[in-house]
Amino acid sequence: MASSEIDALTQALARLPGLGPRSARRAVLHLLKKREAAMAPLLRALDAVNERLATCCTCGNVDTTDPCSICADPRRDARMLCVVEDVSDLWALDRSRLFPGRFHVLGGRLSALEGVRPEDLTIDALIGRIAAGGIDEVVLAMNATLEGQTTAHYIADRIERFPVRVTQLAHGLPVGGELDYLDEGTLAQALRARRPVV
Amino acid sequence: MASSEIDALTQALARLPGLGPRSARRAVLHLLKKREAAMAPLLRALDAVNERLATCCTCGNVDTTDPCSICADPRRDARMLCVVEDVSDLWALDRSRLFPGRFHVLGGRLSALEGVRPEDLTIDALIGRIAAGGIDEVVLAMNATLEGQTTAHYIADRIERFPVRVTQLAHGLPVGGELDYLDEGTLAQALRARRPVV
Repeated sequence: MASSEIDALTQALARLPGLGPRSARRAVLHLLKKREAAMAPLLRALDAVNERLATCCTCGNVDTTDPCSICADPRRDARMLCVVEDVSDLWALDRSRLFPGRFHVLGGRLSALEGVRPEDLTIDALIGRIAAGGIDEVVLAMNATLEGQTTAHYIADRIERFPVRVTQLAHGLPVGGELDYLDEGTLAQALRARRPVV
Repeated sequence: MASSEIDALTQALARLPGLGPRSARRAVLHLLKKREAAMAPLLRALDAVNERLATCCTCGNVDTTDPCSICADPRRDARMLCVVEDVSDLWALDRSRLFPGRFHVLGGRLSALEGVRPEDLTIDALIGRIAAGGIDEVVLAMNATLEGQTTAHYIADRIERFPVRVTQLAHGLPVGGELDYLDEGTLAQALRARRPVV
């Protein structure tokens, strides 16, 4: 249909999550038509990120600086550490702006099925950060899946011997959730963790 | 959440059709994690296209060469000319590999509402190509919308005086279409254009 360069661009875009061949073609057409307004900014942004991309040696976040902008931020509370499975979880929590501390990215979750063992994750580095001191609370913010919770239990066991408070995210009804549509697991957790009304 | 460079990339991607802030973030994370497999090819492809992007002076196609790869292809039947509203229509028809001729992109459709007049489209250039001779058939492949069909009628009027056959795409049931789900306009067209069975 078009030149090999345009084909290559379409294929590169089609491999992104959430895009397929059809939406990639639409995106390419948009880029071709809006060269100044869409193509140029995307190219500049991609170039800048590619140039300076780095993984934070401390927390495992992906950023354009190392240490990352969160680890380097002096306003962050260094005594609180939130442990997440993945960079996407870190971003999700950070977007909420509710957690004032720093993060630690495990790089996955323990999984017997997929053969992911503790040494495949950054658990030793996490222990090292805690052993170094200065941390009061470790928030285990794994996903509410079987593997996520297994990982949380494993980590809780490993850091038991340190004088830190270990907490995990609450389970229960999501905001806006209707009982009728929720699974039994969520309902059971919400009931078990019920609180007195003021 | 992240550095300004990563933010800029997310915003540039979020402005593409079919992507929003959430899918753009997922795409950026994918790019950050797969630097060699995803980021580098996308950057190379974007760079190559941006470097060589051109609009074909003959037909209006967007390509990395001028004349475009279709106009320059000697295997294309120069006696057949297919007129389309937009580059995306050209690509859609060309993907089907059913049309052996060349194309002409109008750059839009006549629209009283949006104030698009004949001189805003490449109609004069189309007349010029037909007046230059060598064309036997002009296929009007406008969209089956009111404005598309108005544009087709206007063009048909303008090229009536030339010794060319003017045709348009058939209207009727789409392949796989069920009568029950089709609008009355399509059914009326399909009935009006009914054909004898063998």
